[in-house]
Amino acid sequence: MGKLLRINTREKKFTFEETPGAYAGLGGRALTSKMILDEVPATCHPLGKNNKLIFAPGIMSGSPAADSGRLSAGAKSPLTGGIKESNAGGLVSQKLARLGITGLILEDKPETDDYSMIVINKDGVEILPAGDLVKAGNYEIMEKLWAKYGKNTGILSIGQAGEQCLKGASIQQADMNGKPGRAHGRGGLGAVMGSKKIKAIVVDDKGAPRIEIKNPDAFKAANKRWVEMLRNHPVTGEGLPAMGTAVLVNVINEAGALPTKNFRTGRFEDVNKISGEFMAETIEKRGGITTEACHPGCVIKCSNVYHDKDGKYLTSGFEYETIWAFGAHTTISELDQIATLDRLCDDFGLDTIETGVTLGIAMEGGMIPWGDGKAAIELLSKVGEYAPEGKIIGSGAQFTGDALGVTRIPVVKKQAFPAYDPRSCKGQGVTYATTSMGADHTAGYGVTANILGVGGSIDPTKKEGNVELSQGLQIATAAIDAAGLCLFVAFAVLDNEDGLPTVAQMLNAQYGLELTPDDILELGKSILRNEKEFNKKAGFTKVDDQLPEFFQEEFSPHKTTWDFTLDDLQKTLDF
Amino acid sequence: MGKLLRINTREKKFTFEETPGAYAGLGGRALTSKMILDEVPATCHPLGKNNKLIFAPGIMSGSPAADSGRLSAGAKSPLTGGIKESNAGGLVSQKLARLGITGLILEDKPETDDYSMIVINKDGVEILPAGDLVKAGNYEIMEKLWAKYGKNTGILSIGQAGEQCLKGASIQQADMNGKPGRAHGRGGLGAVMGSKKIKAIVVDDKGAPRIEIKNPDAFKAANKRWVEMLRNHPVTGEGLPAMGTAVLVNVINEAGALPTKNFRTGRFEDVNKISGEFMAETIEKRGGITTEACHPGCVIKCSNVYHDKDGKYLTSGFEYETIWAFGAHTTISELDQIATLDRLCDDFGLDTIETGVTLGIAMEGGMIPWGDGKAAIELLSKVGEYAPEGKIIGSGAQFTGDALGVTRIPVVKKQAFPAYDPRSCKGQGVTYATTSMGADHTAGYGVTANILGVGGSIDPTKKEGNVELSQGLQIATAAIDAAGLCLFVAFAVLDNEDGLPTVAQMLNAQYGLELTPDDILELGKSILRNEKEFNKKAGFTKVDDQLPEFFQEEFSPHKTTWDFTLDDLQKTLDF
Repeated sequence: MGKLLRINTREKKFTFEETPGAYAGLGGRALTSKMILDEVPATCHPLGKNNKLIFAPGIMSGSPAADSGRLSAGAKSPLTGGIKESNAGGLVSQKLARLGITGLILEDKPETDDYSMIVINKDGVEILPAGDLVKAGNYEIMEKLWAKYGKNTGILSIGQAGEQCLKGASIQQADMNGKPGRAHGRGGLGAVMGSKKIKAIVVDDKGAPRIEIKNPDAFKAANKRWVEMLRNHPVTGEGLPAMGTAVLVNVINEAGALPTKNFRTGRFEDVNKISGEFMAETIEKRGGITTEACHPGCVIKCSNVYHDKDGKYLTSGFEYETIWAFGAHTTISELDQIATLDRLCDDFGLDTIETGVTLGIAMEGGMIPWGDGKAAIELLSKVGEYAPEGKIIGSGAQFTGDALGVTRIPVVKKQAFPAYDPRSCKGQGVTYATTSMGADHTAGYGVTANILGVGGSIDPTKKEGNVELSQGLQIATAAIDAAGLCLFVAFAVLDNEDGLPTVAQMLNAQYGLELTPDDILELGKSILRNEKEFNKKAGFTKVDDQLPEFFQEEFSPHKTTWDFTLDDLQKTLDF
Repeated sequence: MGKLLRINTREKKFTFEETPGAYAGLGGRALTSKMILDEVPATCHPLGKNNKLIFAPGIMSGSPAADSGRLSAGAKSPLTGGIKESNAGGLVSQKLARLGITGLILEDKPETDDYSMIVINKDGVEILPAGDLVKAGNYEIMEKLWAKYGKNTGILSIGQAGEQCLKGASIQQADMNGKPGRAHGRGGLGAVMGSKKIKAIVVDDKGAPRIEIKNPDAFKAANKRWVEMLRNHPVTGEGLPAMGTAVLVNVINEAGALPTKNFRTGRFEDVNKISGEFMAETIEKRGGITTEACHPGCVIKCSNVYHDKDGKYLTSGFEYETIWAFGAHTTISELDQIATLDRLCDDFGLDTIETGVTLGIAMEGGMIPWGDGKAAIELLSKVGEYAPEGKIIGSGAQFTGDALGVTRIPVVKKQAFPAYDPRSCKGQGVTYATTSMGADHTAGYGVTANILGVGGSIDPTKKEGNVELSQGLQIATAAIDAAGLCLFVAFAVLDNEDGLPTVAQMLNAQYGLELTPDDILELGKSILRNEKEFNKKAGFTKVDDQLPEFFQEEFSPHKTTWDFTLDDLQKTLDF
């Protein structure tokens, strides 16, 4: 069992402790959520000294298991006021695991504005002044830190948004090219890191031993089957590698579930200008990279590098949700403008979903015109200038809507909706409403059975079966997040009878355990229960588990409305 | 029994209906809170079509009873998300009562930006275009409307803040001079009026009959005793008429409860520059008015008119809370600057408490320097310019703190604290924490027994007795608000055994009833229960009935902390 590394950001001191028995076998989201429930007072101010920012590699991270390199970040969220887990690819998860660190916990906060950075390697921990990085964006930070600490070093950092403690602030991770293309995007965790005046965390595992595997042969066999499953599934083996997650643009538009002009219709007339097909073609023409892993050991490779008209790097990790948020939602239809908005978010350290939805709300409130990409870029740039407009936009959709007197704000628990309309994809809507995270597609991806025909088929426009769908997915997803696995393994798990058993085999081989698939689902349930308990202590009630009232409006093309009552929805987390 | 006047702001139509039996005997806050509970969905958006803005004169308003001319305004609050009643003096309450209108209810909202104004007189109701008033401040509006409809017409209007639907927006009332010196300040009700695109309401009772008094002789006798009590009490007979509410500046500072520099200490070193004594002296020197009624029939006369250095009108209704918020709280010590800030708030239609506290938060967050009155005036002016800074500042303390990453924000239920530190005046703190209104001194004014020695004496620095104190005051206050009586009658009621019986006698004489003092308190309890029920439906829990965590810090000069637990506090509304 590994160690917990606690860093007191006020005293600038650290301690290692043996991971206590209560946390044995917990990694990723299982660990962050349990520790937050145990150690963070639920009613504390998210930016105060009593909040903690916890990073935890999944329990499979660092092992050779395919797609197991996701890192969970957790805290009380400045955006939602509830518990938050946000996970990302990048290089840190596997390196922390190889350094024997189960959890990295940032505690307390400094009373002054002196920023620090943290360097973690096999020799220990350094907490260094980071004054030279203040007001720097993530591109500059990562370039400097790779230059200093070497290529392929794991980096977590915050840009100007996190420094300003804005509710939309992300924590970015260096991707395989040393660019801030991966993000712990949701829930404003960058603001928590900013409140603790930590500008960057460098994680270097050079010289660290490999992860111990108790039964290497069994592990190898299970992992072989695992890779085969991922490569053979049409979504993870074909769609995602070819076009990245943007493969979904046409699929979701076709399904009438692509929220357009702030959730007014489900189809975008300029969809061809922002589709995955068009993006892949553009990338190829300009010499970018259409398919790239977000962390070593990924066999799906849904990331990418997008070049500008002159063939120069513009952005990376350019994803479906981002393209939708800045595109169909705002009706901006020029992909280069959307890519520029993505780059600005990565640089300032802002969640692209939250920020894209927010720009749509700024349009709704008359701050900038609908579909005006230039105006959107100019407005978003204000975040990097520490200007008042930036403080509004960087604080997310609910905040911006409130500033502008807008009532049509697509949020749950103050977190902006992702790219699936809940009236045309009701399984997803149930997840938005009921997850403790606030509107979050990754918490239980109902798009699977609703639209993609993965794991069965449930009518996306009707109530029937969608509470059960969301419930099952939320449980499974929590377990996947605890393992450090990429959410996209769910496709293979859902469509292969031996999917979950194979995960159990890898875990058993790695740790010398005898887990069954049911044990894994039980872990998922316990995570959801812990998160719900924290939120209850923080003052959440069933009233918070519902969509905004404007979703009762009829929605085209399927003429559907959101028709779940509070009591319908409460069944989702009743297990 | 009078009539309910319902105005559909979308259709621009009105209806009169007999006040239903369920609302018999309910006026002011009793009526607004009951109707909101009955008719407004608790989870609706406060600026959406399902919210209602309700005005109700007190049940004694329009009668000759001294100090009975307060008007209640109620709605779901855009600031707190809970139920709100905010009452004000001015001319409207008595005129509505004389027109036989028990409640004026604004419903629905227009889909376009066309503003209207409403004119109510003995001949009926007109809903007129108000395009010429758009973007006008309340000074201009009231001047135009008095010019058109005659002096002493009752006016309710919103300025630029209400038009922008900002959470700090007030509804202003014309005072005795036709200036916007009286305010339904708290809870952002101006934003609700703005969302319904009603710029002004004109109420003219010319030609209306007098209020019917069933037993004129008994009424006259009781009112005589009532006036005597008010005139003989040292607070309402001496302190308030001489210096207005600003008499409290020195008193509360002396008690160590004047929150200074965002609640860091309880005494302000420049207190002499902002005291009631200094204000009264300045007013006299410059030819202003030191004592003036806020509505006809007031015998306390705590309002005033404040002139500038050249002897010209600068502001009116210049009160203790305002002087504290812009003064000690921000450490601005120049009274003319504070008066200018007050005037700007009246003109834009902003709550002075919320806005003053907000400017302190802007200083806390480094937006402007501490104590810099010029910078504060410049920043506040942005509200009138519809600028981004104004949208932040006009949205209140919690919002501004969030925009700036400030954790030290003195709010309950997102509403800013008034001018008494809860650690040096714990009875007041209990009220802040537990009233359904959000931090509100008028909901249960514990300063009475804590500091002023009115209605007994309870140590303001200790827990003992303060839950009971707040409970009793909250019940009595709700009844006072239902009657349309000024809160300041509480001093006389608390210190005279025949105080409450005299109120009962006036009510019985007016309506031919046989109410006892207990019946009046029972009414108060039912109001509090209704409000709590609404908030519960809106998702509030006991977690919302607590002060921010920074009040656990030790506070000078009495070295006290806020030490009430959630469970201690829940006893307050347990009756």
